[in-house]
Amino acid sequence: MRLLDHNALEEIALGAAVLGTGGGGDPTLGKLMAQQAVAKHGPVQLLPLDDVPDDEWIIPTAMMGAPTVLVEKIPSGTEVLDAYRMLERRLQCRAVATVSAEAGGVNSMIPMVVAAMLGVPLVDADGMGRAFPEIQMVTPTLHGVSATPMAIADEKGNQVLLETPDNFWTERLARTATIQMGCSSCVALYAMRGTVAKKALVPGTISLAREIGHTLRTGREQKYDPIDALTSLLHGRRLCAGKIVDVRRRTERGFARGEVDIIGTGRDGGSQYKISFQNENLVFWHDGQAEVTVPDLITVVDDQTGLPITTEALKYGLRVAVLGFPCHPQWRTPEGLKLAGPQYFGYEIEYVPLENDER
Amino acid sequence: MRLLDHNALEEIALGAAVLGTGGGGDPTLGKLMAQQAVAKHGPVQLLPLDDVPDDEWIIPTAMMGAPTVLVEKIPSGTEVLDAYRMLERRLQCRAVATVSAEAGGVNSMIPMVVAAMLGVPLVDADGMGRAFPEIQMVTPTLHGVSATPMAIADEKGNQVLLETPDNFWTERLARTATIQMGCSSCVALYAMRGTVAKKALVPGTISLAREIGHTLRTGREQKYDPIDALTSLLHGRRLCAGKIVDVRRRTERGFARGEVDIIGTGRDGGSQYKISFQNENLVFWHDGQAEVTVPDLITVVDDQTGLPITTEALKYGLRVAVLGFPCHPQWRTPEGLKLAGPQYFGYEIEYVPLENDER
Repeated sequence: MRLLDHNALEEIALGAAVLGTGGGGDPTLGKLMAQQAVAKHGPVQLLPLDDVPDDEWIIPTAMMGAPTVLVEKIPSGTEVLDAYRMLERRLQCRAVATVSAEAGGVNSMIPMVVAAMLGVPLVDADGMGRAFPEIQMVTPTLHGVSATPMAIADEKGNQVLLETPDNFWTERLARTATIQMGCSSCVALYAMRGTVAKKALVPGTISLAREIGHTLRTGREQKYDPIDALTSLLHGRRLCAGKIVDVRRRTERGFARGEVDIIGTGRDGGSQYKISFQNENLVFWHDGQAEVTVPDLITVVDDQTGLPITTEALKYGLRVAVLGFPCHPQWRTPEGLKLAGPQYFGYEIEYVPLENDER
Repeated sequence: MRLLDHNALEEIALGAAVLGTGGGGDPTLGKLMAQQAVAKHGPVQLLPLDDVPDDEWIIPTAMMGAPTVLVEKIPSGTEVLDAYRMLERRLQCRAVATVSAEAGGVNSMIPMVVAAMLGVPLVDADGMGRAFPEIQMVTPTLHGVSATPMAIADEKGNQVLLETPDNFWTERLARTATIQMGCSSCVALYAMRGTVAKKALVPGTISLAREIGHTLRTGREQKYDPIDALTSLLHGRRLCAGKIVDVRRRTERGFARGEVDIIGTGRDGGSQYKISFQNENLVFWHDGQAEVTVPDLITVVDDQTGLPITTEALKYGLRVAVLGFPCHPQWRTPEGLKLAGPQYFGYEIEYVPLENDER
């Protein structure tokens, strides 16, 4: 069993922000919370997914809400424990580990906080292999796992337990509760026994995030191109390089929504690019044509350092590269595309896998 | 212990609609549900408030939402049992009885349905002595009783358990959940032990409702003026008689809100009246001046039969009398007025008790 220390958290937060495709909140914030918890309670054990005992429960933990709000309304750490314990009480169980619902800045780190504070391991997996904005958009949904019972807690002492007939109703009721709580909340949901988790989760996400983070950090030191290293590691490609010339954002129905305009530079000079986002980057447009869409990963990085830029940090003047990475194969099935393809988000675009894109 | 049968329900529904001041939903609908339950499961035992054992739990049950929606989205009866049982599970108790949270058409009858289906008694009391639109507006709030844990259920199988730091947060979170559920839900809340209930509830409400209903029904048969009988029984007075000339309504933030304009007839000829409502009637205006306000009761009745007219049944052309009745003394304390006086509802009007009104 591997131990995750201060340095590991640094790398994982960085890597998860790449996988988070702009969403999941500020990685720095989550990292500081997790590092503080580890400094106080000791390093976190990383448990391979295959080693979760079949009959034991694991409880995913996360923050929910608009990332634009998360960066200003910082959780204390106790809210997420409230949610975790409320779910344990409901299930009348002691969970053996927590796990990330999604890869992404805050949401790769919140389970780390829980693991450190409670002294339970963190499972090396997540429910997406990336980040998505809505609750039902996880691989467990594709395996018929219920998001409920789900516990929601905030810093004011509010706690909500949901039981719903399907994961879309969970999203709807949890979202409105989160909006009332001030557009951010801490949640525990998709509790699973080991036997289910092994089928329903994406394995190895934390290790992969760490590898990405390590690559980006050593790239800077060892003078190789971090962006090339990243696209090679994740089997993706550079979609464009350019300068951000406009960002339009709105906090709408509890989400951070908007578009960012990028004007190409260098060999992309003369081209215009746009990314539409809802917490996460959804569609990458090239001269008005959709080129890459969800569920494939679209990540904006600094064009020199390769460091990921979350949607709430996008601003005029930044020199960026936009990278595309293939999603986990489960998302490319008809069920996966129905759950998180471009059409679900209201775009009348057929999904074309990133690799065979020549629209 | 008295038994409530088909005929008793007829009278109670009628009387509760008078106390409901326009809110609490269609009395006919609630009555039919309760009569059906009694036909199937037998009559309901009415338990005097003083006879509730000190250490046992009672669980109030109700419907929540806009009355305009309740009349079209009829509950099956199982939703409210879902809520009741969810609360029992949370409290790890078997409640000995249910009780009305408020007097009012549907909400005096829903606990009757629960009592009949579960074979538990109904306590002869309620949490207001009238009806009010928001959760925290009950006498238990004045006694520091928490609305939570609160269970909410709908016909789709959604169940929500709330734990909140105060009853205003309960209202806020329960209201948004109810709106998502389609503007109506079934709830169980303000669970109390007998010792608390005896202080915090308004005693005798069901008996009083029955007496009101009986008065209205026999009035029609025995040819005395039912309206005079009603104002005498409840120590109130006739505020005006007239014809409804306009109703403006909107379903807003989960409430049925609006105003009704009445033009005086007979000895009130030449006067213009208006009632502002939010589920319940809030303010009675006479020629532009506020004359009677919450927490006193303002009830619109048919000017011949004295039968109460709920806010959703108000319509152009009806010949009505508007009656005013004094509220329970608890509402006239500074705390009571802060919780449910005209200023809470946004009217810059000082409350003047109905009896000493000569504005």
